[in-house]
Amino acid sequence: LVPLSVLCEVGCFESMDEEYLIDEYDFMDSELNGLLIHGRGFLTKLRTAISYALSAKDPFGLKEYKGFLKKAQKVKMDIPVTVGDYTDFYSSREHATNVGMMFRDPANALLPNWLHMPIGYHGRASSILPSGKKIRRPNGQMMPKGAETPVFGPSQRLDFELEMAFVTCSQTKLGKPIQADNAEDYIAGMVLFNDWSARDIQQWEYVPLGPFLGKNFASSMSPWLVLMDALEPFRVAGPEQSPTPLPYLQSTGNANFDINLEVSITPKDQAETIVSRTNFKHMYWSMRQQLAHHTVNGCNIRTGDVCASGTISGPTPDSYGSMLEIAWNGTKPITLADGTTRTFLHDHDTVKMRGWCEANGVRIGFGELRGTIFPNEV
Amino acid sequence: LVPLSVLCEVGCFESMDEEYLIDEYDFMDSELNGLLIHGRGFLTKLRTAISYALSAKDPFGLKEYKGFLKKAQKVKMDIPVTVGDYTDFYSSREHATNVGMMFRDPANALLPNWLHMPIGYHGRASSILPSGKKIRRPNGQMMPKGAETPVFGPSQRLDFELEMAFVTCSQTKLGKPIQADNAEDYIAGMVLFNDWSARDIQQWEYVPLGPFLGKNFASSMSPWLVLMDALEPFRVAGPEQSPTPLPYLQSTGNANFDINLEVSITPKDQAETIVSRTNFKHMYWSMRQQLAHHTVNGCNIRTGDVCASGTISGPTPDSYGSMLEIAWNGTKPITLADGTTRTFLHDHDTVKMRGWCEANGVRIGFGELRGTIFPNEV
Repeated sequence: LVPLSVLCEVGCFESMDEEYLIDEYDFMDSELNGLLIHGRGFLTKLRTAISYALSAKDPFGLKEYKGFLKKAQKVKMDIPVTVGDYTDFYSSREHATNVGMMFRDPANALLPNWLHMPIGYHGRASSILPSGKKIRRPNGQMMPKGAETPVFGPSQRLDFELEMAFVTCSQTKLGKPIQADNAEDYIAGMVLFNDWSARDIQQWEYVPLGPFLGKNFASSMSPWLVLMDALEPFRVAGPEQSPTPLPYLQSTGNANFDINLEVSITPKDQAETIVSRTNFKHMYWSMRQQLAHHTVNGCNIRTGDVCASGTISGPTPDSYGSMLEIAWNGTKPITLADGTTRTFLHDHDTVKMRGWCEANGVRIGFGELRGTIFPNEV
Repeated sequence: LVPLSVLCEVGCFESMDEEYLIDEYDFMDSELNGLLIHGRGFLTKLRTAISYALSAKDPFGLKEYKGFLKKAQKVKMDIPVTVGDYTDFYSSREHATNVGMMFRDPANALLPNWLHMPIGYHGRASSILPSGKKIRRPNGQMMPKGAETPVFGPSQRLDFELEMAFVTCSQTKLGKPIQADNAEDYIAGMVLFNDWSARDIQQWEYVPLGPFLGKNFASSMSPWLVLMDALEPFRVAGPEQSPTPLPYLQSTGNANFDINLEVSITPKDQAETIVSRTNFKHMYWSMRQQLAHHTVNGCNIRTGDVCASGTISGPTPDSYGSMLEIAWNGTKPITLADGTTRTFLHDHDTVKMRGWCEANGVRIGFGELRGTIFPNEV
């Protein structure tokens, strides 16, 4: 880890000062919002300046700064931004199909609107947490199968959702849509995202206005933002889209990214078991399309808004991004390394998500996003 | 209107200074968040101090301050808080029944969960606007009746929703639910709220994750916060709740408020027509119940969160809170004072909402919440 305030002090950003009026104080905030507001062009220059400062020839004499590069494990990390609005999309075709097969009609698993637009909904910003924060099993109303009146208590079907999210930079004016071809100008970078879900609470509440208490008790975000410039070498084509989306959702060039993802469950004092391996490149709707759709009605974005992808599921059960799908709504329990089985999460289970890109000897890591389930106190 | 910074300057809040460490600067922000963070007890003392300063005996010699009391019409007003998270409930039984009759099964208009909890969903905070801001007719995807593929263009079914909202004070820790009996300790006050809605966009997008682009292009909030203490004389019992709600939704005493509400439409250069008169006291789920429900899973609140009531409809068509209901999904057009008819809003229509309490010679006003529809530029 590189403290940006030190880089600023040694003069790393001097050439940028005049253009953007930045100084040490801009690099001392615990969140990145004050930097992201300057937009994609600024972030590109910032990244170039940092790369130069850290290059082998050490132009600013950083080697003399003792302990300058800190090990990530030694630093207590928060989420990288103060979140304005948080939106969660639903952009994996495999995930939407799996959910539709389980809860609606297996023969018509995808709803009629799904192939025409990136379906999404608003989530809760106040409960977005850094990696490592305890996740308390939520209480709530549920209507168990066969019951005639709802019951109240701790969720019995607590789940993770493997997602990635992008964070916005710059801002837009209300009424000014973002074009799909320009959408990446408003995307600073990406993080891992766990959209913790209480399936039993969600199922009882979600018709007709969508998920609410089944989701808003906690979401977790990985500690650092991987800038879009760093992901450039990993750009790939997305799945073919048929029917062809409306013009406002079309753009040129590759819009997906090849990012390896995995999820594991570690029961207390036991070994870790990988329960899913998948890839972000499978997503049907791209981030460009999500942002163009989100703003086509004039909705404005602010710096630090978070848009999550929705659960990232691949084509096979070992690549599904939630326990709901992996254990097929409780009907196909999986066995962990310690011999215990899971349909949903148990108390004291730790869920870890990891993401990385790798090609031609270059590796970019998203770090690890961790959360442990704690019993409800009631 | 009373500039609080002047009151502070003359010493009105001196007795409170020591307890809360407040000074002039706390009263100079354009938003109230810095004051609301101190909680309900502080707001009660603040209100008492202001009442004393403005009393007939003029203890601080305010009459000498020229132009001290400004006319509301002469001040350009913003929304009263910087909004953290915005939640929209759906708590009018009449509204939920009307919508269910139009779009689902008239014989089973209320969904099974509706009588068991205050259904709600998360909305967009970035597009909450002050009274008077232009409302641009949103573009979006729609699936007109009989069409085989979606079309794109300006919404043809643009609507208002007459709502009220409460603003939170203080804050809670993640994992700590608010008890229904204590919920009003976290409610600073109330405003009028217009949840502008594009019905055609909403109808095509909302299954299964709820309203998104049909709502997030704009919401409007009235300029000043009426503190809960000021509403005390207007407290009334709510409708009887059957079935009895779960214990976490129960509280003692009256939890509703008698607030008169009206909505009008004024076409450009024409006379105003009142299209709805109703009352906030009709709401089935109280604000206490909304906040207890919202946090029962551990979801945390922050100062400046906004919870809107959902459309406030009374029992008769002239008391419905949206054009969708007033003109019954386009089937019963209404005639305005200028002789033109409406099923939904036309460009250049101005919608005004007003709210006030009145009893025993005391009148408390919420002011006027205004918005004018402008055509989309495309």
